Parts: sequence; structure tokens; C-alpha cells
Amino acid sequence: MKAFLDNHFLLNTDTAVKLYENAAAGLSIFDFHCHLNPQEVWENKAYESITQVWLSGDHYKWRLMRMHGVSERFITGDASDWEKFAAYAETVPHMIGNPLYHWTHMELKMFFGIEKRLTLETAREIYDECNEKLKQPDFRPRAFIERSNVKFIGTTDDPASTLEYHQLLKNDDTFTAIIAPTFRPDGALFIERPTFAPWIEKLSDVSGIKVYSLESFLQALKQRVDYFHENGGRASDHDIQKMEFVEPSQEEVELIFNKRLSGEVLSEEEVIAYRAFLLKELGKMYAEKQWVMQLHMGALRNNNTKMKELIGPDTGFDSVGEENFAEGISRFLDALDKEDALPRTVLFNLNAKDNVVLAGMMGNFNEEGVPGKIQFGSGWWFLDHIDGMEKQMKDLANVGLLSHFIGMLTDSRSFLSYARHDYFRRILCNLLGEWVERGLVPNDMVFLENMVRNIGYNNAEKYFLQR
Amino acid sequence: MKAFLDNHFLLNTDTAVKLYENAAAGLSIFDFHCHLNPQEVWENKAYESITQVWLSGDHYKWRLMRMHGVSERFITGDASDWEKFAAYAETVPHMIGNPLYHWTHMELKMFFGIEKRLTLETAREIYDECNEKLKQPDFRPRAFIERSNVKFIGTTDDPASTLEYHQLLKNDDTFTAIIAPTFRPDGALFIERPTFAPWIEKLSDVSGIKVYSLESFLQALKQRVDYFHENGGRASDHDIQKMEFVEPSQEEVELIFNKRLSGEVLSEEEVIAYRAFLLKELGKMYAEKQWVMQLHMGALRNNNTKMKELIGPDTGFDSVGEENFAEGISRFLDALDKEDALPRTVLFNLNAKDNVVLAGMMGNFNEEGVPGKIQFGSGWWFLDHIDGMEKQMKDLANVGLLSHFIGMLTDSRSFLSYARHDYFRRILCNLLGEWVERGLVPNDMVFLENMVRNIGYNNAEKYFLQR
Amino acid sequence: MKAFLDNHFLLNTDTAVKLYENAAAGLSIFDFHCHLNPQEVWENKAYESITQVWLSGDHYKWRLMRMHGVSERFITGDASDWEKFAAYAETVPHMIGNPLYHWTHMELKMFFGIEKRLTLETAREIYDECNEKLKQPDFRPRAFIERSNVKFIGTTDDPASTLEYHQLLKNDDTFTAIIAPTFRPDGALFIERPTFAPWIEKLSDVSGIKVYSLESFLQALKQRVDYFHENGGRASDHDIQKMEFVEPSQEEVELIFNKRLSGEVLSEEEVIAYRAFLLKELGKMYAEKQWVMQLHMGALRNNNTKMKELIGPDTGFDSVGEENFAEGISRFLDALDKEDALPRTVLFNLNAKDNVVLAGMMGNFNEEGVPGKIQFGSGWWFLDHIDGMEKQMKDLANVGLLSHFIGMLTDSRSFLSYARHDYFRRILCNLLGEWVERGLVPNDMVFLENMVRNIGYNNAEKYFLQR
Repeated sequence: MKAFLDNHFLLNTDTAVKLYENAAAGLSIFDFHCHLNPQEVWENKAYESITQVWLSGDHYKWRLMRMHGVSERFITGDASDWEKFAAYAETVPHMIGNPLYHWTHMELKMFFGIEKRLTLETAREIYDECNEKLKQPDFRPRAFIERSNVKFIGTTDDPASTLEYHQLLKNDDTFTAIIAPTFRPDGALFIERPTFAPWIEKLSDVSGIKVYSLESFLQALKQRVDYFHENGGRASDHDIQKMEFVEPSQEEVELIFNKRLSGEVLSEEEVIAYRAFLLKELGKMYAEKQWVMQLHMGALRNNNTKMKELIGPDTGFDSVGEENFAEGISRFLDALDKEDALPRTVLFNLNAKDNVVLAGMMGNFNEEGVPGKIQFGSGWWFLDHIDGMEKQMKDLANVGLLSHFIGMLTDSRSFLSYARHDYFRRILCNLLGEWVERGLVPNDMVFLENMVRNIGYNNAEKYFLQR
Repeated sequence: MKAFLDNHFLLNTDTAVKLYENAAAGLSIFDFHCHLNPQEVWENKAYESITQVWLSGDHYKWRLMRMHGVSERFITGDASDWEKFAAYAETVPHMIGNPLYHWTHMELKMFFGIEKRLTLETAREIYDECNEKLKQPDFRPRAFIERSNVKFIGTTDDPASTLEYHQLLKNDDTFTAIIAPTFRPDGALFIERPTFAPWIEKLSDVSGIKVYSLESFLQALKQRVDYFHENGGRASDHDIQKMEFVEPSQEEVELIFNKRLSGEVLSEEEVIAYRAFLLKELGKMYAEKQWVMQLHMGALRNNNTKMKELIGPDTGFDSVGEENFAEGISRFLDALDKEDALPRTVLFNLNAKDNVVLAGMMGNFNEEGVPGKIQFGSGWWFLDHIDGMEKQMKDLANVGLLSHFIGMLTDSRSFLSYARHDYFRRILCNLLGEWVERGLVPNDMVFLENMVRNIGYNNAEKYFLQR
Repeated sequence: MKAFLDNHFLLNTDTAVKLYENAAAGLSIFDFHCHLNPQEVWENKAYESITQVWLSGDHYKWRLMRMHGVSERFITGDASDWEKFAAYAETVPHMIGNPLYHWTHMELKMFFGIEKRLTLETAREIYDECNEKLKQPDFRPRAFIERSNVKFIGTTDDPASTLEYHQLLKNDDTFTAIIAPTFRPDGALFIERPTFAPWIEKLSDVSGIKVYSLESFLQALKQRVDYFHENGGRASDHDIQKMEFVEPSQEEVELIFNKRLSGEVLSEEEVIAYRAFLLKELGKMYAEKQWVMQLHMGALRNNNTKMKELIGPDTGFDSVGEENFAEGISRFLDALDKEDALPRTVLFNLNAKDNVVLAGMMGNFNEEGVPGKIQFGSGWWFLDHIDGMEKQMKDLANVGLLSHFIGMLTDSRSFLSYARHDYFRRILCNLLGEWVERGLVPNDMVFLENMVRNIGYNNAEKYFLQR
């Protein structure tokens, strides 16, 4: 029997241990997609309590607390930091089988050196010990990043952002990790939302291009793509809840755009036509800059109206949807490819049933000299667990080339989430180790260790930065 | 090599064995959903042959016999009991890999003490031995229930039922298991069926409320909910073949209802509107009574017209459908939640591809003090096997709290099906044991044994009965 | 640790080894569906290089090379045979985890006795050794077939084919394997394609029945079914990209047919109506002849327009689609069954999420004396790998009778693909062996060895040939 969370955690064979120790353990981190706030990095914010680091923004934890029957007062309400921590600690033992059970204990061990299990009984002791440590200078955002050996962080940013903290960080010689912005044009794409008109205002202001037509709108967006690029941006990201791809004429879209600009409500068809058109225009801009385009598909958002009205969106009431996207993605990528304007693209899904749709799709579009041009992204959100990551890698390997996989990202709001890269790497090493031990793969440790280093770091660096 | 069906059946690690022996083996059974006939319990019917107990109503067995090429005469036809048993025995060895292979031998062992494998060669001997035993008084329904340590049985009942056998059983001091009715309003919901008008008649009669309008209809249904509650009913159950949720006005639904009452055929939109409206009204009634609402989704029924006309529905010609339900379920639960009228709800699916849709959905709606308010139900029908149950629990654990899972139910028509609870518990213990041995979970046997007892019995009892 | 590709490859238990050695190793092959060219068998074509055997027609390999970033010149372009082989060899190590990595080395070992791993370093040596051997007479199509112990090959043929090579082979006493044509009426079903009119011409010519109406069209098709039957045809095959089943009247379809014959473009509804009608008419013809009807579902074809225009369809730019088919298949099979005209049918899917839809569907239609009348086909194309085949067999076993499964087919264009039958059999033996060792199945080697022989060969022979 293996002890819980020992050094060989998740490594079930000797080969897995060797691969991990030789190739994965000391590897740098390339975290190409997350939701960290660059301002917090710049300010190198000090935390008063572990509750602030751990519980103040993590809707994964909130969900499990709510499912445990915890009152909202101890989650997003006005309870004290200690009360909230205690409520979380009380929930933790019930998380057995959930990745948060692992993440929680991995983070306590990795960052605070605490190997006790978190329960209601140990809560006070652990709370005090963490808070004591959080007073020290190497328990702040920059230290967490540096201690985790993170070389690159791709944040998620509004095109209307001035990127001032990215700029400040770039010019700060005392901090070497790259904090690169990622262009996330929700404001532009979700034309049907009430946020559209105010966002257009912001875009006009920040770009210096007065948006009064589709053409000026595209110019302003282009200006922001350029601006992001100047400020280190090498990627975009999109939330694709539904992917129907049509190709309306520019004239049709102009009418739709103007209609909406004048405050009218659009039909579903108009929204679809507009979104498909804009996505393609954006795709061409990304291709021109040799950026990476990320598409996150399959979420069913804001299922709980009462809680949305109470505490807002993105607070833990999203789940897994069922919309089809195979044909839409195919046509979208093809439309760009036909114009030689298909950028490198990462496809993410939320239900493992669709793994093979994406793992298959990635083989349809290729580019000489670019191994793995289209990527099938790592297990994300509701798939970000051992089973999800293992299945994602197997499904990818079964119909594609695992060797060129760009690997893990945290997708997180917390500076302690780098444990997830370690989690991923152990799973990867274990998978390869098992294949070797079962005779499915030759015992060529040189090749396999390289493969681990590539999937763990090098592939992503090449994919996002080397041109 | 483990011997087939030995004491450690399905328990692959020492930890699994310990968990099973310490926590699962002697546990009572809370069978919250089945299709047993309460009249047979009341009458404590004696069986002339194992064929009557085993083969007379079990369409799972019929299906496999048909797939084996057995003539319908030996399945539902006029062959003798012995001929039918022999035909089944001839099929059994070909069931290797199917849960019925296990159930068959588990039931022979558990209830008849027979450890021989059933084949055409052993058929006569086993047939005679079973039939000999069936003459004894402790081989009748009540004895099967008592010997299996069953504390609660949730039958499936028409709202128009008088529940007379539930009442008789409740008042019988010699029988202690609770036999509670479950409100299954197919008659009310499937407005498009020719059965609707006669069912309304029955409802009027039994409720004493003459149904001539939507309002009187809802009053009559409310009367039945009250009546079921008085007679121990604490749950409802619904067959959801397609889940589109819309919110028509009461006036619109009145028109639809009256139209149908006057014998007209409804459009698909009308049926959808009516069904969504009624489901919500029923949901409110359940919430008021603090009942549990069960939703069984995903069946594709009556695929074989010829056989339906020959021997009727529910005879083994259903399979797994593909209708979407994520958005419909989300809107339905949300609509109730917005009015603070969402009852505890159990969501069941039939294709494992949708596990994560439901396991995710359950986290969207919560209630302070009620751990696991929305439940993702155990692997059901075409998912009721080792792989299906294991995956259901893993998927649940990966995005929710396995610890609060209400566990197994038989969904059966046979008094010998309690072996399925043992099957489930072994799979549960094996899963937890494997996690412990692999170091994924701390070796805290006190917590884990409690978890087994909770999932095996306590959670369901709390969920259905404790208020 | 097991050595890569040793004699016990994929066999993880002693029982698996025993089953394989006693029952699977020497078994003949019944390859009921492939894309081999009978002309090449007849001519017993000599190959100049391993590139011609291996790389000239295999779009599975092409895809992986493209994903590796290889230039099209080295794939389908004008590079030399050696350059192409070298480009493939360079890709091979990156295929770790992909079935092609196994197939590649299994074929080198099985047919050329080469046990070296193929890499850029070993490429020249292996290339030369293979090419040297290819000069020998037993390295030609017929020898590959005979050495692989293949008894039956079902090719895939246009109804307008004269089957001249099938006839020549049948009359050649020096060659004993049966090369049977399979009726694949794409030309008839895809009425919307520009190929329709010229294909009708061809059909008229070859059948001797002038097609000028729906009736004469059906007569001509019937003539071809008869002709195929006379020439050893016992099966049909269909590419079902979308399965909507409707039942238009013959008159409606006549109008549609005539409209198209006169060059008009059909609406989507008309195409659906026509296709459903014709499929049913064909089904009746198959049933009359007691043929097997194969339905391959779920491909999303021709995703890359640029490459389609450059090098044509079926060149490696297809992937996995999402169209529903449960209801369509159900209605289609039911429509035939109602008229007592349902032939034996094999259902294939491309996404494992649908396994249980088909494994369930197969139980809805049965025939006395025909075990496994409807078959759930083996893991195909994007599912043709260890995980896919294992899951297909488990899903089949969980809801049906694995024992009657007709097993593997190559679906290949290459004479070296028979290694896939060995791959499949090892996976089957391993699955059964694991079940035995874990005590899930009795250790009855006589029954299990028979089961391996049946699934490996006998079931398919019975299913296709014995009437």
C-alpha cells in the first residue's frame, strides 16, 4: 500500500518514477492559460490569511462547500476568514475522490510544508501556521511564481484593457517570468448582451478609433491585436458555448452590426451570423500575427438565476452542456484554411464524450514544419482530474501524436495552483510508465524522458513563442 | 487467480475486503426505487417454480434469450415452466461478461445456497432443488425481503391507485419493512396518449374531484399527492424521454388541456408546453411535501412494433436514446428554485456519456443544511453493471461529493434482486480500496467505513425520510 | 517489465496467454470487410518497394505524417519512394501510443521478420531489407493472404462493377481464399452528388436495364444484387453520415427521382426522403437473399476543402461527427422488421459514446435460431485501437452477448493489415483472461477457448455464409 501523497504519488511503476524523477520533477512551468490578475503580481500583494489566498476567488471550492450544505454566509458571505476556512476544512474530508482533495493537500505541502490532512480537527492549527507563513515575504504572488519555477504566464484579458500591469511587470528587472496578455474578445463577440454598447465605447476610447460602423469596429479590434502583440500577447482565447458556422456577406453583417448599435434586439440567426463572421475576421488577424487561437467549448453557464442575481456570474453555477460543435468547428477552421489564414489553434472540450471529435479534428488541418498545428487541449475544468487528463492523453494518442502535445495549463485564479502542473506530469509519467511496463512501448528512456520534457514544457514554449 | 464468485468477489485489495467485511456486509437495505408489486408482498404469494420467480416478469433475461436466438414460445409463450427454465439455462453460459451472469449466480447462492454454475447440463438439478425450496415458507416474498435485511421499499405507483396493499402492509404488525408508494404520474404527463381520457376518469373517481378543467385537474393531483403522503409516500418518479423546458402561461395550458379533453390531437409544441407546465406544478407540490423527485432520462422505448403489438410495451424492446436534456433540466430546476420550490431531486441517465452533464448539474442547486440536495443517481438499466456503476461513482466523485451519494436501488420486478445491493457495495468498497492502496486517499478506515455505511444505507434514509 | 512486442504482447495474465496460444494463435482469418483491390490479388502484383505496399494508399499513415509537420511532397507528392519512407520513419517514434506504432512493428515482424524499431536511424537498413524480400515470390498479395491464413475476404464494390476479378479468382484453382464482393451502393444513395447521373448511365449499361424511372432503377439494382449473389456476394455496406428515417410514398419518391434525373437540385427533405426509401427497398432485397447489411455511421467527411481539391476525397481529412442516429436506425430496422424483411445487420459507430446506443439497439430485433442477428460491429477507424476495441467488447458484453460477436475485420487497403486480426485476438484473450483471474468469470477453459475461436472466426463464417 502506498502512503497518501507520498513522493511517488500517482507513479505506479518503476518506469513512471524514473521518468518523473529524471525528466519532470525539476521542469520549469509554461502556464499558457490562466485567470491570474497581473495587478496582484505587480503589487505583490500580501495576504492576511490563507482564506484570502485560497477561498476568496475559487468557485471550484465554493461549489463543493455548497454541495456539502454549507451556508452561503461561509462561502461568499460576511463570515470571518476563520469561519470560512473552518467551513472549508469541514468539507474537505468529504471531497475524497475529487481533485480538490489532492490539490488542497498538494498545495499545503508544496507551499507551506504542511503534511497534515485538513479536517475540522486540524483546521485551527493549519490556519494559524499558514497565516504565520503568509506574513513572510516569500509567501506573496511573485515568490509563489518564482518558487514554482514558472517561466511564462498567459493571463486572460479584455481587448479594451490598457495592459498597464503587464507593461510594468515587463519593465521590472527584478521579476523575470513573462506575464503575457491573452486577447479574449467576449465583449466583441457577445453582441446580444446589454454590455455590448458600453464595451464599444470603451473600445473606442482605448483604441483611439471611433467605432461607428463594422469597418471601424474591425479597425479598432485590429489596433488592439497590434497593441496586445506589442505588449507580449501571442494568443487569444474564446468561450464557445455554441458553434454554428455560417458565412454571411460583409453587407449582411454591417446591417446586423448597425441594427444592434442602434439598440435593437437581434434574432438568433443574426447573432449566429455576426459571431461567425467576427470569429473569422479575428482568426485572420491572429494568423497574421502568428498567434495561437484558443477555443474553449461546451460550458452551460449561469444555471442558477437566483444566485446569479445575488452574487453575479462565474461564481460556481456553470456546468457541462450538450451543444454540437464538430461541424461548426470544421467549417470555421476550413474557412480560414482556404484563405491560408488558419492560425495555430487549441481546441478544448468539457465532456470527454467529445474527445475523439477534437482529437480527430486536429488531424484535418496541418502545416509543413509545424508539428501539432491544431492541438487538442488538456482536460479542462470539469475534466481537470486524473480520469479526465488520462483519458484526454489516451484519446489524443489513439488518433494523433501525443508526442507533440502542448500539455498542461492551470486555468486558475490562484497563485498556488501550480501544483496542478505537478499533478499533470505525474499522470503523464504514470501513463508512459505503464505503457512501457506492459510492453506497449519500447523501453527507450532517452526518447521518453525527452517526450516528458517536451509535453511538460518545450512543446508549449515552441508553440506559443518560437517563430 | 480468484475463484469465480468467491467471498471476496469484486474485492481486489485487502483494503477493499476490510471495508466490505467491516462496513458493508451486514448492512440493511434501503431500496428506494423498484417495480415490486405490493399485492404480492401482502399476499405473500407462494411460487410453484423458479421460473415464476425468475423468468415470468424479467425483460432483462428475455432480451438475452432472444439475442441467443431462443423462440418466443420459451420466453413469453406457452412453453412449460421447465422448458422456459431450460431455455434460460442454455443461454446463461453465453452471458459471460453481462451482469445477468453475475446476478443469476449470486441469487442462486444467496437465496438457494446453490453454488453450481447454471448450464443446460445442471439445469434440471438446479430447477428441482429450487422448486423444492420454494415450497418452504421462507421462500416467499416477505421472507426474501426479511432475509435480505430490507428496511424500506419504494414501489412505483399510479396516482390513481388506492394504495390498498400499502395500507394493509402498514397495518400488519408481523411485517416490519416499510413499503412506501412512489408517485409516478405518467397518466397525467403523457397527454398525447389514448390513455389520457380514461385516466382522467379514474383520477376523478379516486380523488373525488371531478376533473373538467386544468384547475380541477391540478386539485385532483394535489389530492393524490396528499393521499400518497398520508400513506407513506415520500417520493415521485418520472420517465423523461425528452426534456424541453418552456414556461407557457396558465391560460395557454388551459386551452391545450381543454382541447385534449375534448378529444383533439395536440401539436408537438402543445404537448411540450403542457408537459413542462405540469412538471413544474408537480415539482411545487413535491417541494411543499419535502418529497424527493426522481427523473429517469434517456430511454428510447418500443423500438419493435411487431413485438409491441404481440406482447405489449415494457417487454424488452427498449434501448438507449440520444435526446439532449442538459438545458431542459437546467431550466426546469432553475424555474422551481427561483420560486423556492425545488424539491430534492435525483437525476438518472442511461448513457454514460451524459454522466458529467448530470454530475455537473447537481452542483448548480443547493440548500443549506442539505448535503447533496440534487443527486446523480446510480447506474441504471443499461448502465447497471460493474463498468457503469464504477464510472458513475468516479464521475460523481470527480466533480462532486461521492460521500453524500444515496447509492443503490434495484429498479427491479423480482424479490430476488437484492443481490444487486451486494454487487454495488462490493464495487464501492473495491473502488475506495483501490484508491487507498494507490495512495490517492488516506488510509483512514474509520472515515471510509462510515462512508461505506452512509452510501450503502444512511444517506438514502436521511435523504428520503429524515425531515 | 515486458519487452516491447514480445510473444506475450498484450497478454497480461497467464490465462490470457493460454487462451491465445490454445485458441487464437493458429486461427484462420475471416476478413468480412476491407477495401482491397481484387485486381491486385488477381494480378498478384509485385512491389518495387515497401513504400508502395505500405505508404501508397494508407491515409491513416498520411494523417500522422501531416500532423508531424511533414511536407505533402513526401506524403502524396512526387518525392522518391525512399524519401517517403524516410519521412515516415522519422514520424514513427512520435506515434507512441497510437495503434499505427504497433501495426507498423507487428507488420515488419510478421511479414518481414524484422524486429528492429523503425526510426530515422534504422530506416535505410529496414528499407533495403524489405525491398530485397519484396523481390521474392512469397512477398506478393496472394502469398500475404495465404501466409496470413485468410479464408475469406469481403471487398467493397460498386454495384455497377462487372466483378471480373472476383470471377477470375473464383475460377483459379491455385488460389483457395474466397474473395467475395460486397454491394456498396453509394452511387445510388447519394442522389444529390454530381456523380448521380453518370452512375445511372453505368448502371443501365452493366445491368442491361435502361433506367428511366424509379421502377426501372429498382429493377436494375435488383439485377445487380442478383448478379453479386451469383458471384459470391453475401453482404452490402453503407456509409451512413446522417440517419433520418421517414417513409414517403412510392409516388413521392418517383417525383423526387425524376426531378433529379432531369438535372434539378433537390431540397434536403427530398434527399432524406429518397435515401430512406431506397435504403428500405435495398434492405428488402438483402433480406430476400439472406445477405448481411452493414451500416457504418458517424463520419464527418472532407473537412479540408483545399486538400480535397488538391488530392481528392478519402485522403485523410475525415474525422468524427456528431449526428444522432438512434431514432433513425430504430425506425429503419423496425420498418423492415414489420414486413418480415429485416436482414442480418451490423451496426458500426465512430465515437465510443454511442457504443451503448448500438449495443442496446441490437437487442431490439431478433430471430429465432439466429444468435446475434443484429451485431454491434468492432471498433472501426478512429476506434480501431486497444482502448476502442476493449471498450467495444465490454459495452457489448454489458448489455448483450459477447459470445455471439462476429469480431474483427481489417477495413484496410493493404495486404499487410492482417496483423490487426492478431492485435484484436490478443485484446480479446486479454479481456477474458483478466475476467477469469479476477474471479468475474469461471475458469472454464473449454468454454472460453471455444468462445475465442467463435469470436475469432466461426461466428463470422456462420453469420455471413451458413444458411
